[in-house]
Amino acid sequence: MSVQGEPAAPWGPPYLLYLGSATDDLAIKTARGLAYWRPQWCLGQHRRADCAVTLGLPDIELAQGRNEGAQTMVIGAANAGGVMGPEMVADAIAALEAGLHVVSGLHHKLRDHPDIVAAARVHGRTLFDARAAQPGTPVGTGKPRAGRRLLTVGTDCSVGKMYTALALERSLRQRGHRADFRATGQTGILIAGAGIPVDAVVADFISGAAEVISPARDDGGWDLIEGQGSLFHPSYAGVSLGLLHGSQPDALVLCHEPTRRHMRGLADYPIPDLMACMEANLTAARLTNPAVKPVGIALNTSNLPAHEAQAICERVGALFGLPCQDPVAMGVEAITDHLIASFEI
Amino acid sequence: MSVQGEPAAPWGPPYLLYLGSATDDLAIKTARGLAYWRPQWCLGQHRRADCAVTLGLPDIELAQGRNEGAQTMVIGAANAGGVMGPEMVADAIAALEAGLHVVSGLHHKLRDHPDIVAAARVHGRTLFDARAAQPGTPVGTGKPRAGRRLLTVGTDCSVGKMYTALALERSLRQRGHRADFRATGQTGILIAGAGIPVDAVVADFISGAAEVISPARDDGGWDLIEGQGSLFHPSYAGVSLGLLHGSQPDALVLCHEPTRRHMRGLADYPIPDLMACMEANLTAARLTNPAVKPVGIALNTSNLPAHEAQAICERVGALFGLPCQDPVAMGVEAITDHLIASFEI
Repeated sequence: MSVQGEPAAPWGPPYLLYLGSATDDLAIKTARGLAYWRPQWCLGQHRRADCAVTLGLPDIELAQGRNEGAQTMVIGAANAGGVMGPEMVADAIAALEAGLHVVSGLHHKLRDHPDIVAAARVHGRTLFDARAAQPGTPVGTGKPRAGRRLLTVGTDCSVGKMYTALALERSLRQRGHRADFRATGQTGILIAGAGIPVDAVVADFISGAAEVISPARDDGGWDLIEGQGSLFHPSYAGVSLGLLHGSQPDALVLCHEPTRRHMRGLADYPIPDLMACMEANLTAARLTNPAVKPVGIALNTSNLPAHEAQAICERVGALFGLPCQDPVAMGVEAITDHLIASFEI
Repeated sequence: MSVQGEPAAPWGPPYLLYLGSATDDLAIKTARGLAYWRPQWCLGQHRRADCAVTLGLPDIELAQGRNEGAQTMVIGAANAGGVMGPEMVADAIAALEAGLHVVSGLHHKLRDHPDIVAAARVHGRTLFDARAAQPGTPVGTGKPRAGRRLLTVGTDCSVGKMYTALALERSLRQRGHRADFRATGQTGILIAGAGIPVDAVVADFISGAAEVISPARDDGGWDLIEGQGSLFHPSYAGVSLGLLHGSQPDALVLCHEPTRRHMRGLADYPIPDLMACMEANLTAARLTNPAVKPVGIALNTSNLPAHEAQAICERVGALFGLPCQDPVAMGVEAITDHLIASFEI
């Protein structure tokens, strides 16, 4: 078995996406992110008989998947509480027996199941827990470093920060620019094949983790860093601030879900004012990069009819004097245009 | 052996303070804090022949200390890097053999030394690592809770936030008010006998840890919460923000060291402007407690002559229109007066 932290861990695509017995779309968020952003890596899905959702990919058995070239089974479906039930444990072991590596975005770790660890050892396969922080993250230094970085920040959790960073990576690459998505959460890490789950590192090392995720670069390219949480979320703002400081962003994109009525999980906390949220992020970001600029607003308008989505983007864009788009419904070309114009890249 | 996290772990005073082979005052910071704030608990010090510093306490051998009633040896002296050298490990084992519990404020853990763990088990003694976070800290809820809380915040690390909170506890108690120091760092935890090292918890749980440290209270008393780091320290600001949100402070005292030229450990980062630092803390604190008030400034003037210390306190106090004192050199009575007047306690 190869364990996490060893160099060149051999897990990787092609992937078989494990949906288990998932019964709603929220439970397969991680698998869906992977299928959406890296379709070329996703050979098929593997479901139990009682699974009630689909990614629209071919249903493939383990041995068949291995024969067709799959390298890794991705456990991208959560039970309540992120727990691995006995069926899921059995399926992970069956995948290892079939010759697949197994990676997981669940809260509970593969490595905490002795039977899974034993099977990986016997079959010489790799286990990887995308939510587990590696030991050895350094304390942040605040030292200026080479390269250009964009961080997506948000009014709340789960408003599209990862999708926005990935959409910008795609857009910049399509225009011939060097650009790399830098992952800070489990879904992003599985999409990127690398990254650090910043909310899982020890508190003293949040900004240090951000420095490691987006190291100095001198090839003229951009790092598109996946933001986490919100400076206005009473549960997680410390993660957001450390990530902001460690990222030393040159550019910020503010992400927002316009139909959200209160902060995720906290009915008594209203969503912050968009302008105040942008200002708070810019003010905090200036500590480590005084030249930081806002370059756009990304709205997740999936809960609005198309004409309202268009109208709200226009309204918010005019308010800020910045391009405002829904990365999924409208793309991010206007934001990319503005980024390129702002930094003469 | 009783392990951390079990109820009613039996370590506690009277203490024997272990200084080892320490050669400078900085290395015995934890022991000195304990001797200064809890002299009634400290029976004596235990030093190696090459120890070059003293707390001014009687030098006591292990068996003698036990005979005189010592319950616990406190390892309050750090080697470079917080490492436990072989002598220190041997001394910890000798203390367990002599019948003492052993607690440590070092970065490296007692529990990570199999020989120490084995000796604790054989002799039925407790080990406690004050820098180790307990598992099971919940996510912060942001829910308003009963009771009054004061948090000490700072322009930088190591500017007197713990001393200020302890001085306010003493002052309020001397005036007959209920008041409890709430510890968030290893020295504070050894002084209080309880607490959570917030910089050691997983990033997602910083504000949750603060909520646990200062639970709801309805006895009319105050929690005096030890702050950590600074919103303006690029390495640790995430810890400071999470602690600020979770503490839901009614009152803030800003702590500062007026001769400090740059942020601790970061030569290129200037100390923030005092007024800007207070404003940033108040703004962030309002997220979870809109009624938060500043009640004073605490300066660590130990590097200044007395007349300059007095002058700078007057100047800063006038600037803010708040009492400004050095808690060690001058006490905190003016700040306590203002706190009582502000909250009609």
